[in-house]
Amino acid sequence: MGNTFGSIFKLTSFGESHGLSIGGVIDGCPANIKLDFDLIQQELTRRKPGQSAIVTQRKEADVVEFQSGIFEGKTTGTPIGFIIKNKDQKSKDYSHNIDVFRPSHADYTYQEKYGVRDYRGGGRSSARETAVRVVAGAIAKQILSQKGILVQAYVSQVGEISVGKSYQDLDLSLTDDNIVRCPDQVVALVMESLIKSIKKNGDTIGGMITCVVKNTPVGVGEPVFDRLNAELAKAMFSINAVKGFELGSGFDCIEMKGSEHNDEFYVKGEQVKTKTNNSGGIQGGISNGEDIYFNVAFKPVATIIQKQNTINSKCETVELLGKGRHDPCVVPRAVPIVEAMGALVILDYLMIQKSKVL
Amino acid sequence: MGNTFGSIFKLTSFGESHGLSIGGVIDGCPANIKLDFDLIQQELTRRKPGQSAIVTQRKEADVVEFQSGIFEGKTTGTPIGFIIKNKDQKSKDYSHNIDVFRPSHADYTYQEKYGVRDYRGGGRSSARETAVRVVAGAIAKQILSQKGILVQAYVSQVGEISVGKSYQDLDLSLTDDNIVRCPDQVVALVMESLIKSIKKNGDTIGGMITCVVKNTPVGVGEPVFDRLNAELAKAMFSINAVKGFELGSGFDCIEMKGSEHNDEFYVKGEQVKTKTNNSGGIQGGISNGEDIYFNVAFKPVATIIQKQNTINSKCETVELLGKGRHDPCVVPRAVPIVEAMGALVILDYLMIQKSKVL
Amino acid sequence: MGNTFGSIFKLTSFGESHGLSIGGVIDGCPANIKLDFDLIQQELTRRKPGQSAIVTQRKEADVVEFQSGIFEGKTTGTPIGFIIKNKDQKSKDYSHNIDVFRPSHADYTYQEKYGVRDYRGGGRSSARETAVRVVAGAIAKQILSQKGILVQAYVSQVGEISVGKSYQDLDLSLTDDNIVRCPDQVVALVMESLIKSIKKNGDTIGGMITCVVKNTPVGVGEPVFDRLNAELAKAMFSINAVKGFELGSGFDCIEMKGSEHNDEFYVKGEQVKTKTNNSGGIQGGISNGEDIYFNVAFKPVATIIQKQNTINSKCETVELLGKGRHDPCVVPRAVPIVEAMGALVILDYLMIQKSKVL
Amino acid sequence: MGNTFGSIFKLTSFGESHGLSIGGVIDGCPANIKLDFDLIQQELTRRKPGQSAIVTQRKEADVVEFQSGIFEGKTTGTPIGFIIKNKDQKSKDYSHNIDVFRPSHADYTYQEKYGVRDYRGGGRSSARETAVRVVAGAIAKQILSQKGILVQAYVSQVGEISVGKSYQDLDLSLTDDNIVRCPDQVVALVMESLIKSIKKNGDTIGGMITCVVKNTPVGVGEPVFDRLNAELAKAMFSINAVKGFELGSGFDCIEMKGSEHNDEFYVKGEQVKTKTNNSGGIQGGISNGEDIYFNVAFKPVATIIQKQNTINSKCETVELLGKGRHDPCVVPRAVPIVEAMGALVILDYLMIQKSKVL
Repeated sequence: MGNTFGSIFKLTSFGESHGLSIGGVIDGCPANIKLDFDLIQQELTRRKPGQSAIVTQRKEADVVEFQSGIFEGKTTGTPIGFIIKNKDQKSKDYSHNIDVFRPSHADYTYQEKYGVRDYRGGGRSSARETAVRVVAGAIAKQILSQKGILVQAYVSQVGEISVGKSYQDLDLSLTDDNIVRCPDQVVALVMESLIKSIKKNGDTIGGMITCVVKNTPVGVGEPVFDRLNAELAKAMFSINAVKGFELGSGFDCIEMKGSEHNDEFYVKGEQVKTKTNNSGGIQGGISNGEDIYFNVAFKPVATIIQKQNTINSKCETVELLGKGRHDPCVVPRAVPIVEAMGALVILDYLMIQKSKVL
Repeated sequence: MGNTFGSIFKLTSFGESHGLSIGGVIDGCPANIKLDFDLIQQELTRRKPGQSAIVTQRKEADVVEFQSGIFEGKTTGTPIGFIIKNKDQKSKDYSHNIDVFRPSHADYTYQEKYGVRDYRGGGRSSARETAVRVVAGAIAKQILSQKGILVQAYVSQVGEISVGKSYQDLDLSLTDDNIVRCPDQVVALVMESLIKSIKKNGDTIGGMITCVVKNTPVGVGEPVFDRLNAELAKAMFSINAVKGFELGSGFDCIEMKGSEHNDEFYVKGEQVKTKTNNSGGIQGGISNGEDIYFNVAFKPVATIIQKQNTINSKCETVELLGKGRHDPCVVPRAVPIVEAMGALVILDYLMIQKSKVL
Repeated sequence: MGNTFGSIFKLTSFGESHGLSIGGVIDGCPANIKLDFDLIQQELTRRKPGQSAIVTQRKEADVVEFQSGIFEGKTTGTPIGFIIKNKDQKSKDYSHNIDVFRPSHADYTYQEKYGVRDYRGGGRSSARETAVRVVAGAIAKQILSQKGILVQAYVSQVGEISVGKSYQDLDLSLTDDNIVRCPDQVVALVMESLIKSIKKNGDTIGGMITCVVKNTPVGVGEPVFDRLNAELAKAMFSINAVKGFELGSGFDCIEMKGSEHNDEFYVKGEQVKTKTNNSGGIQGGISNGEDIYFNVAFKPVATIIQKQNTINSKCETVELLGKGRHDPCVVPRAVPIVEAMGALVILDYLMIQKSKVL
Repeated sequence: MGNTFGSIFKLTSFGESHGLSIGGVIDGCPANIKLDFDLIQQELTRRKPGQSAIVTQRKEADVVEFQSGIFEGKTTGTPIGFIIKNKDQKSKDYSHNIDVFRPSHADYTYQEKYGVRDYRGGGRSSARETAVRVVAGAIAKQILSQKGILVQAYVSQVGEISVGKSYQDLDLSLTDDNIVRCPDQVVALVMESLIKSIKKNGDTIGGMITCVVKNTPVGVGEPVFDRLNAELAKAMFSINAVKGFELGSGFDCIEMKGSEHNDEFYVKGEQVKTKTNNSGGIQGGISNGEDIYFNVAFKPVATIIQKQNTINSKCETVELLGKGRHDPCVVPRAVPIVEAMGALVILDYLMIQKSKVL
């Protein structure tokens, strides 16, 4: 339990922040897919620490080494095993934490659940693990893109600075043009300067990522429990630091009337469309062919470079001064992670749907 | 895929709105549990149509008939099969819909996914199916309550009317004292009158349910993919009409700093506690012993008694005038459903955790 | 755990021998399949008690009542819930057994595992449960037969009386022409008379069923753990009283040399074939297009009408004289069960294979 | 699908015979288990090629490198990732096979299933993959042995040479005293000489392994589909070259009467025992506390150093002369594999049983 995601296209993940390597196994990948390894590496680089002034300065090459499941550049249908070596573990940075439960980290819960923990760099609870997801997601995205399906995420809010527009009014191809990964270049600059000032104070700040999936065919999703929206919600909440998920109209739906919220069907050419898309592309747990879009809220990173009171394993009150190399705001690096998890869900569910057609 | 929920304590659900019966199978229920059948029926009654002036007037006895897995009043550890007969199906009410895709319903997506659908009363996509969950949830709640764990939900918002207080400032034992299921009796009256006025206009309105789980032991949750919060998110998004889920600080975390958001550990007696609970009782995907609390956003019911444009299966534009018996606001009846799904998650994960201790 | 079989085409089973009903839920059945309900009932009748002089005389109509998932005679893709009411439970026959652990039955292990048991008629451990599998199997067989795939089982041995021929030298369409279900009518008569003489002595006898699956397409099976042969082995061993399973050459392979055992490939028309079929139609866990055939060994029924020593729940030695209505030999009624389980495996794996082709 | 085994204690496997490495991920291992790494390596050495004159002469160090899930010598409860590097791949040996389907190998079925295959050394279908299982099994065995549970396998037959005794009349501690792994030293010599003479002829021979599990507590097993015997059958049939599985009385039960076959219960001290053990330690799919024992039939290895006719991918008839380094008889090296798969099943099911006790 716990470290495998998906039913047909399955990712199993392993690895701690400061172990020899992190890695994973992708089981169920369709055979005969020619992989673009540069694209996979590129996704890893988007998530990589040390990529800009507003992220953690840990240096990791984050090079993926495939062990199996690929032959002469193509998938073989057998499990794809891969590892990413850990290189720049400064475990000494964490020696002061051996015995301390950092506030709003997972030190205490891991210790209590397992009775033991690898405290170095957060061990298994470190977001370093998400690099594994990015590898699998990059493969899923390649397969989806051959079907015309695009999964695109971007930073839509940092602290109080919101992009203030619908995804439809943004050019998502510009997302990676700035280090914040907000497609509005003006807003991005404001976000960047907010993050820098937060960092200067040794503090951190929350943020929001919006994700859009285009061209999912109608009919993907498995009611009643495995609705497409339910699996997306789970996928996003499986990412470190996520506190909220909303699809389509989201929390705004609470104050809306049915007569406002309902999405009117009409026919455009030979396609069934809806005039509005409060449903967020999913009705009854099944994709309806419209864009699937959702928001994901990320809390401020728990590691701050300020004094905090906490306790240690002997239940003594201690004072903690954060060290280590951490992100002042998690969302710029979380963009490829959200895309990866989104792609894993869509591909897996597409494959499940295929199984029904004999 | 799709109709089973849980890993150890598993519910499999079946049934359409206007078929002979709906029902389910609970597999993995611990043996030797003495069941209180009145309590189970009472939960069904909380979800039942026709219970008050602000819900659908369909009349259903909603009596559960257990078929197996219970002997002399106790669970035997074998699967608990049960059915709830459908009685007051007015399928004629839906004959005008045979061929029409109602806006923001699942008619279109079911038709496209399966190529066929039982259109009567929404078929499988009807919220009637959730009665099955309430039965399983009522059993889970009984088992949890023997461990001191309580799962309590209530209506915290209807349209713009919000309860405006934290769950800690409310007496949740009063939730069922009014037909809205809001523990603040004054606010409940305002909500009730809003729902009635919405209903008079043939319209519907959205709402929010807050749920609190007390006394979950530390250590429940399966990182990295099956975090307790991730499974709760999925469970809630598997309920009809849900558009948003947030845990603890939720979407508010976006604008917070780490120094504000972090939950400071301290020791109270022999217990580790946190001074604040922005984490919502879960850190790193694992329960930390604090209250688990979350909000669930429900959209306005899609069936409105107003004229709407839509299309039919021949892709012709048609005018639809809603008929049938529907809820003007779904949240009063959804309270026991949220509790049921919450209880299923907590119990299942508690059992998974037990499996690790040899 | 335990009461669901399959990954995509899934059967969940419930029910005790003397409860209100037994039943099941089929999830993942392809939509738009027109069902032949007479054929389903016919399969149940093949398994039914009281069908001949050589089986138990319990009288059960064994009529299946579908609750959901079928609309206007066709599957809808939603879960198919069904029940079979228990009618002729003579629970009093078992009152003498309340406290006694019958030898080679599951009384003792159920009691110890669960701490409680429904002792009436063996409760959940009764082979009555297999009627549920026959219903699901009958649906699977209909879907498979539309693809040209046939699953045919027959009795190949009773005690020392063996049919003594390969399935290829038998006309399997004659299997149901006698009450033993052995396609060789002469051997069948000898088997019948053996069973009758065994019955007269209040004893029981073991037997063997051979099953052949024709026309499975090449490529079905999921190495390395979920090989098609591995899943068939599990399916057969999930049936009451099974003690052995062998595929193709089976246990005879032990004494064979590679040069004898290897199946030489050749081309016939446009089809790849093998000259021999020691592989039993499966190589590397994947079907190769040849007939899949296997043997299943069934032990003699544990209930005998003879005095036996055993113990009761107080660990006292007691003398037991078998009562109740039981089969002197299980294989005639087990033929449709073997076919059902075989069909469930083949269909499920066929659907898994479909999921890989995007 | 396919490359993960187990429900709670789960092994996911990856790797091809001639890729960079093979490896796996163990998810769900209990935390805080001190591992004996020498014992793990020792098990790998028992399976290793090149270990004696009667096995393949491929040279592999087969050193396992753990990547995660272990901290300061103890399991942490997080996934245990590991790799075993491939070193002595003589892929050129296989270049003559690029296009040829070797008889009774998986070349043809892999090619047809996936449309592509890594033909070097059999790729994924090579028994090399089983080293991964041996690692996981060695960990499972250590955990089981702390509970007093022993899983012991041995060679009971090679060709026509059978050990001719029950496991109870053998000293299983002597199994590894000879290169055949038969605990009867005299019979072992005969087996060894048979294997050598078979090898001299460029041929191969089948064999049988018997496995005994001692001290499994009563109550392990998940009826009705996931019976302990059903899972053991699947586990064994997931091993390369297996053609038959029988538990307890096995195929002999066919000719037995109930009065002979039934295992009489009696009380010995405070323990419930049975006088005979035809049930093989499992009744109704649940362990009864007696020894669990079973036989596994292995076919002769398909690679022979003799001329064979076969076809290539263009459907041309070709003559094949086996090359490469292969085993004349698979059973000596399969002993640790059978033990590994047996241990994985018992531990996983023990953990499932624990989950039920709240």
